[in-house]
Amino acid sequence: MNIQRGEGEYRYKKVEQEISKHIEAGDIVPGDKLPSLRQMSTNLKVSISTVSHAYEELEKRGLIESRPRSGYYVRSEFRKIPTPLAKIAQKLEPHTVTKNKLIQTALETVGNKNLLPLGVVCPSSELLPTKQLAKIMSAVIRENPEISVNYESIAGNLQLRRQIAFRSVDCGSNVTADDLIITTGAMEALYISLRTLTRPGDLVLIQAPTYYCFLQLVENLGLRAIEIPSCPENGINPESISSAATTFDIKACILAPSFNNPDGSLTSDDRKKEIVKILAEKNIPLVEDDVYGDLFFGETRPRTFKSYDLDGGVLLCSSFSKTIAPGYRVGWLSPGRFKDKAMEVKATTNVSCASPTQMAIARYLHEAHFDRHLKRLRSAMKDQMGKMRAEIAMSFPDGTKITDPKGGSVLWVELPSKIDGVELFFKAREEKIGIVPGAVFSTRDAFSNYIRLSCGALWSDEIQKGVRRLGELATE
Amino acid sequence: MNIQRGEGEYRYKKVEQEISKHIEAGDIVPGDKLPSLRQMSTNLKVSISTVSHAYEELEKRGLIESRPRSGYYVRSEFRKIPTPLAKIAQKLEPHTVTKNKLIQTALETVGNKNLLPLGVVCPSSELLPTKQLAKIMSAVIRENPEISVNYESIAGNLQLRRQIAFRSVDCGSNVTADDLIITTGAMEALYISLRTLTRPGDLVLIQAPTYYCFLQLVENLGLRAIEIPSCPENGINPESISSAATTFDIKACILAPSFNNPDGSLTSDDRKKEIVKILAEKNIPLVEDDVYGDLFFGETRPRTFKSYDLDGGVLLCSSFSKTIAPGYRVGWLSPGRFKDKAMEVKATTNVSCASPTQMAIARYLHEAHFDRHLKRLRSAMKDQMGKMRAEIAMSFPDGTKITDPKGGSVLWVELPSKIDGVELFFKAREEKIGIVPGAVFSTRDAFSNYIRLSCGALWSDEIQKGVRRLGELATE
Repeated sequence: MNIQRGEGEYRYKKVEQEISKHIEAGDIVPGDKLPSLRQMSTNLKVSISTVSHAYEELEKRGLIESRPRSGYYVRSEFRKIPTPLAKIAQKLEPHTVTKNKLIQTALETVGNKNLLPLGVVCPSSELLPTKQLAKIMSAVIRENPEISVNYESIAGNLQLRRQIAFRSVDCGSNVTADDLIITTGAMEALYISLRTLTRPGDLVLIQAPTYYCFLQLVENLGLRAIEIPSCPENGINPESISSAATTFDIKACILAPSFNNPDGSLTSDDRKKEIVKILAEKNIPLVEDDVYGDLFFGETRPRTFKSYDLDGGVLLCSSFSKTIAPGYRVGWLSPGRFKDKAMEVKATTNVSCASPTQMAIARYLHEAHFDRHLKRLRSAMKDQMGKMRAEIAMSFPDGTKITDPKGGSVLWVELPSKIDGVELFFKAREEKIGIVPGAVFSTRDAFSNYIRLSCGALWSDEIQKGVRRLGELATE
Repeated sequence: MNIQRGEGEYRYKKVEQEISKHIEAGDIVPGDKLPSLRQMSTNLKVSISTVSHAYEELEKRGLIESRPRSGYYVRSEFRKIPTPLAKIAQKLEPHTVTKNKLIQTALETVGNKNLLPLGVVCPSSELLPTKQLAKIMSAVIRENPEISVNYESIAGNLQLRRQIAFRSVDCGSNVTADDLIITTGAMEALYISLRTLTRPGDLVLIQAPTYYCFLQLVENLGLRAIEIPSCPENGINPESISSAATTFDIKACILAPSFNNPDGSLTSDDRKKEIVKILAEKNIPLVEDDVYGDLFFGETRPRTFKSYDLDGGVLLCSSFSKTIAPGYRVGWLSPGRFKDKAMEVKATTNVSCASPTQMAIARYLHEAHFDRHLKRLRSAMKDQMGKMRAEIAMSFPDGTKITDPKGGSVLWVELPSKIDGVELFFKAREEKIGIVPGAVFSTRDAFSNYIRLSCGALWSDEIQKGVRRLGELATE
C-alpha cells in the first residue's frame, strides 16, 4: 500500500484513518499488537515520524494504547458493537401526542450554544460554505437592490425553483419549477403538507422512532398518530404500511425513507417503490422528508418516494438546512396534486419567504459550487460518525448498541435497559453536554433507554472527551 | 407668504403643493380664476418662471386649466367629494368565509408586475431604503458569516427584538425584547395568534371592511366570522364590540385600529382604551394589526391597543413590510400572556425566521436611519394620496365617494351603487391596471360597489393616466 497525500491533507491523517478503519471493521481486534513504527513505515512508504504521529492520534482517540517496552496494541476495551433492532409495537393503535413539554425542553437544550453540541444535527459552521455564501449574498443584493426588498411570489423565487428542479434529477424526483413551493425550511413544508391534508382529530401514520419536531407538529395540529416500527438496518417495512392502512382510516403518512432522524435507517429503493404503490392504491397521501438524502456515504444518492409517484400523491419536503445554511431557512415542498390547497396554506401563513436568502441560494446553486461542497461534507460526516462510533464503543457500558448509518448525521444509541435516557439527558446537561433523550422520538414509551447523538460538529478533543464523559455518566 | 426651499426640494413643487392644498380644501372652487403669474410671483416671493412651472404641473395633474387669452382656472370638473359612511349590517350574524377563490384572483393580480400597481399597498422601491439596506446586509454578513448561516432562536434575533422593544415606546406599547417573537411578516404574526387562540369552528370578530388576507386566513383555519362595521371617519365603535361580545361566544377579535386596510380608518385613542377594557372584562383576546401605525400624516403616532393592555390579552402584530422592505419578511408578534403557546406554534410552523434578514434590519434600526426615512416616507405617502384623491375626484362618475385617511397607503372608493367593483376589476385588468374589488374585503356582499386603490407608487403621469382611465371605465 502506498499512502498518497491529497491536496491540503496530512499524511499522518491518512495513516490514522487507514488503521482506524481496520479496527472498526474488526480486521484487527482488541489485544492485537500493531506493527512497529519501522515496519509500518516500510509497509506504507511513509516516514517513521508520520507513523508515530498517527499512532499518537489513535492513542488520543482511545483506539490503541502503548505498553511500555512492548509497542502499540488495540485497546482491549474496544469491541465491535451491535446495531439496535426495530422496536415492534405490541399492538398498532392510535396515540394522542402529549410529549410537547419534554420536547420543548430538549429543543431548548439543542439550541443552547453553551453546551457541547452532541444534540445538534446540522453540520457545524466550519463544514458549511459560509464565506462563499457571504460573498454571494453581498453580490446578489448589490446587483438587485430593488428585487431584494420586494415580495417574492407565493411559490418563491423562480431561479431557485429552477435550480432545485434541475437537481431533482439526481434523486429521480424529476419535478419542474412549477411543481415547487419554496418554504421556510423543510419544517414549513411538512407543516403546509399536514395543514393541506388533515383536520384536527385526523389520524396520521408515522414511523417510530421519528423526528420529535414532527411529533410536536402532530400534537400542535390536534392530530392522532399511529406508529409503525422503523428498523435501523432496513428502514420501513411495506407490510407494516399495508397492514396499518388496511386497519385504520389514515389521512396521511409522514415518512423519512433516507437516513431517518434519529435511527439513520435507509429504506431501500425497492421498498420505496412498493410503499408508494400500496398507498396510491388506498389513496393515502405520503409526506416525504428527504432532508438527509444528499448526505449518503455510498456511491449513489438514494432515490425518493417522489421518484415512484405516478398520481401526485407524494408531497416531497426538503431543504438546504443540513447542507448549505440552516439559518437561511430555505426549504421546498413539491406538493404533487395538492398544489392549490398548499399554495393557500402558504399564502395565509406568511405570504412568501424572504427574498434575499432565496436569491443567494439560487446563485450559489447556479454557480455549481454545491456538488463539490457536498462531496467534502459527506466525507467529513462519514469520518465524524466513524470516530464517534469508535468512542462510544469504547466508553459506553456493556450492552450498548449503536446504529451504523449509511448516511445522515446522527447515531441512535440503545443503552442497557435499566438506563433511563431522560435522566442521562439531564445529567449530561448539568455537565454542559447537549444530547437528546430517546423518549422524545415516539408517542409511546418505547425508547426510554435510548439517546440520539449528533455527528454534525467537527471531531475534536473536546467532542471526544464529551462522548467519553457521557459513557461514564451512563455507566454510573 | 414666503416659499422657502428645503434641502433637495424644488421651489415650484412647493408652490404646486400650496395651491393644490387650497383646491382640495375647497378654498378655491371649480371655475375660480387663479392669480396671474406675475401676481402669484409677488405674493409668494418666487420667480415668474417658478410659478409658471407650478401651474404647468397643476395643469398636468388636471387640477387647473388654461383658457386662451384669459389665464388659469380651477377645472370645473373638480369637486369636493364626500367620504363613504360605515356599512351597518342589518343584523349581526356569524358567517362562514367563502371568498377564497375571488381573493386568490385578486392576490395574483396584485402580485402581477406587468400591471399598473394600483393594487399594491407597499411603497414602491424608490421610496424604500434599498441601497442603504443592501450595504448593511453586505456588512453584517461579511462581519458575521457564521452567525448568518446558523439557526436563530425560535423567538428571533435578540438585537432585533431589542430595537423593536426600544421603538415600542413611541406607540405606548412598551414591550420588552422578551415579550416578542420575530415572524415572517405581520401575516405570520396574525396566523400564529389565531392558531394560538382558536380551533376550527370557532367564532372570531372582525371589522368590515377588513384586509382580505385576514378573511382568507379565517377561511383557511375553518373559523367563522362575525363582522362589525368599520367607519371610514371614526374607525371602530366600542358599542358594536360590546354588543357583539355580549351576544356571541367570540374566541378572538382581529382589529386594525390605525389606518385599517382598506378604509384607512383611525380609531381614536380613547376608543382604543375603551375597547381593550370591554374585551378584558369579557376575557376575549384582541389581535391587533398595527402595520400602518408608523405611516401617520398628523403630528403624533397613534397609540396601540397594546398600550392599554393590562392583563396581556392583546396580541400585537406588526412588521417592516410597509416601511423598510416587504421582501425581507420581518415582522413581529407581542403575544402577551399567550407566549408559550405562540412559541409552540412558531416552532412547529417553521422553527425560526431567516437569520440574515433579521441581522440586517437590526443593524438598520440600530444605526438610527429609520426615523429620518419614516419622515420622508410619510410625507411622500401623504402627497401621493392627495394627488390620487384629486384625480379620482375629477375622473370618476358622479356619486363617487372617497375616504380621506389620516395615514396609511390606501383609498377606499365607493362607486355609485349600480357599478360592480368586481366587473371593474376585471375590465381594468384587461387594460393592465391592477386594483382590488371591494367585494373581497367582507364575508358579506356589502361592498360590491367599492374598490380599493393604493397610493404606494410614486406619483407619475402613468399612474395619473391609469386612475383617469379607471374613472372612464367606471363611467362606462
